[in-house]
Amino acid sequence: MIQTPYLLFLGDAPDQLAAKVAQGIRDWRPGNCVGQIRMEGCKADVGLPDMTLAEAKAAGAKTLVIGVANRGGVISAAWKKVLVMALEEGFDLASGLHNLLRDEPDLAAVAEATGQALHDVRVPEVEFPIANGVKRSGRRCLAVGTDCSVGKMYTGLAMDAEMKARGLKSNFRPTGQTGILITGNGIPLDAVVADFMAGSVEWLTLDNDEDHWDHIEGQGSLFHVSYSGVTMALIHGGQPDALILSHEPTRAHMRGLPTYDLPSLEALRDTALPLARIANPACEVVGISINTAAMSEDEAMAYLAEVEKRMGLPTVDPFRQGAGRLVDALAAL
Amino acid sequence: MIQTPYLLFLGDAPDQLAAKVAQGIRDWRPGNCVGQIRMEGCKADVGLPDMTLAEAKAAGAKTLVIGVANRGGVISAAWKKVLVMALEEGFDLASGLHNLLRDEPDLAAVAEATGQALHDVRVPEVEFPIANGVKRSGRRCLAVGTDCSVGKMYTGLAMDAEMKARGLKSNFRPTGQTGILITGNGIPLDAVVADFMAGSVEWLTLDNDEDHWDHIEGQGSLFHVSYSGVTMALIHGGQPDALILSHEPTRAHMRGLPTYDLPSLEALRDTALPLARIANPACEVVGISINTAAMSEDEAMAYLAEVEKRMGLPTVDPFRQGAGRLVDALAAL
Repeated sequence: MIQTPYLLFLGDAPDQLAAKVAQGIRDWRPGNCVGQIRMEGCKADVGLPDMTLAEAKAAGAKTLVIGVANRGGVISAAWKKVLVMALEEGFDLASGLHNLLRDEPDLAAVAEATGQALHDVRVPEVEFPIANGVKRSGRRCLAVGTDCSVGKMYTGLAMDAEMKARGLKSNFRPTGQTGILITGNGIPLDAVVADFMAGSVEWLTLDNDEDHWDHIEGQGSLFHVSYSGVTMALIHGGQPDALILSHEPTRAHMRGLPTYDLPSLEALRDTALPLARIANPACEVVGISINTAAMSEDEAMAYLAEVEKRMGLPTVDPFRQGAGRLVDALAAL
Repeated sequence: MIQTPYLLFLGDAPDQLAAKVAQGIRDWRPGNCVGQIRMEGCKADVGLPDMTLAEAKAAGAKTLVIGVANRGGVISAAWKKVLVMALEEGFDLASGLHNLLRDEPDLAAVAEATGQALHDVRVPEVEFPIANGVKRSGRRCLAVGTDCSVGKMYTGLAMDAEMKARGLKSNFRPTGQTGILITGNGIPLDAVVADFMAGSVEWLTLDNDEDHWDHIEGQGSLFHVSYSGVTMALIHGGQPDALILSHEPTRAHMRGLPTYDLPSLEALRDTALPLARIANPACEVVGISINTAAMSEDEAMAYLAEVEKRMGLPTVDPFRQGAGRLVDALAAL
């Protein structure tokens, strides 16, 4: 639906985490990206060539993807100058922001005049049912985090890639804009109306072969007071057979909540597992995924070994090490 | 905004619970109701005189309120005949259903032609913020249930009424259509977009006097897989200082989920309190509210005494006994 290749728009991202949409696309579909475009003050870099609109156009880019998220998801006036120019130079736009491209009169008018498309992947395009809780066939794995933005999507994508490489039946099931932009399908869970959240997750992860695994993209955290309801709907709508605990060990406080400390991995396990067993009594915590991007190799290895010993579960950074041991843990279930 | 008095429409409610909207209005604002109107096959009765549209009109009714909820909230063809006639006879319509009155072309056209108003109280009319988790002044009480429809709204309304009767500072804060229809304000939480659920609850329960209590209307249950995400947003957005456990002891299984058993009150306490303490470390479970409507007086009294002894908390049916002991428990905090 969205034409490739992409030019990734990083805007004036205040830090690297704010550009996680762009980073995810670049890491999982590098062949779909010709470059990045950054504004003055941008603190993010996803490791693609910096290009002007004209350079990207010459390199074949068809769609400018907004790869940066602001708190609240607003399209600023500064961004708009670039977006309008992009439409005028013949790019489509794609975005997962709450603030829809189509709701901006100037963008809508220029898109209309130039014949370019506006793709708002955050908008649900299905009338989801209310969850019915009926047990489904096939198996499902969900990553739950101590915080937001700790590597849950990466974990699911890496486990799916590993299973596919082994010739096993597997799908990654996106629940956010990055995943949807990467795979071309999924549910924009944080934009679904409250009553239908769990039902949308059931809809996404239907009955399947008994030896098939859905890797459901996690969202938020049970411990993040802004988004915990979304996480809960994933746990109950997803009926996971397996949970992966996800953590970023250098975080000083919960993301966006300076007075809230991160929970321990033990607290996450002891909170998430009983809740998951309401929907699937057979659910088990099978492994731990640590985002060690901010650590040296030695620090990371020491930390992973310490956690593995303490928690008694396979503990890896799937970005450094691949997800092989997590897939082994699923196979052992 | 909605003109009173009301005629309460019970439709073809399959059971008494399906008419809980009408029952709530009738119990808490009896002076606003002239009667009820029921279709063939209706299994509910809220104890008001049965009236035709003409009789209700003659008795002064100005608005027909849809007091019945279908699973999924759909307006059936059979209902529509009555609703169209009501508009033609000069009633406004008010509804809290997901299926909006304004989205039905025939209702919209007849309302336009007759000059009558369509009130969809389920539609959020505010752009809610994302929750920021900042500690607020004033105090908040939230009822959490073992299941949906176990008496959480009644508990909040009864505690608010008792505090007002004692001259204490108190507000009932509705989070559902019945509460909004009763009080004229509140948030339709189950219709709020996922990312803004907790923020909408923060918006509803702002800073207040230190001796003021907000009684936040509970929704769903942490143990009900269809709606648990909504409950979680209430617990984290509401920052309750006090939790009331709510239960209906004759329920054979979770409402709408025939293969799911109800949790024990102990399991509810042990699940809800640690989650509430993420947002408010001082939170306490202060009492238990039991809906004994399906029990005899003797059975009810014996059951309440047994639970009170077992749980070590004041245990009442606020509908039979009033909420005095629950308010005492708040005062003792």
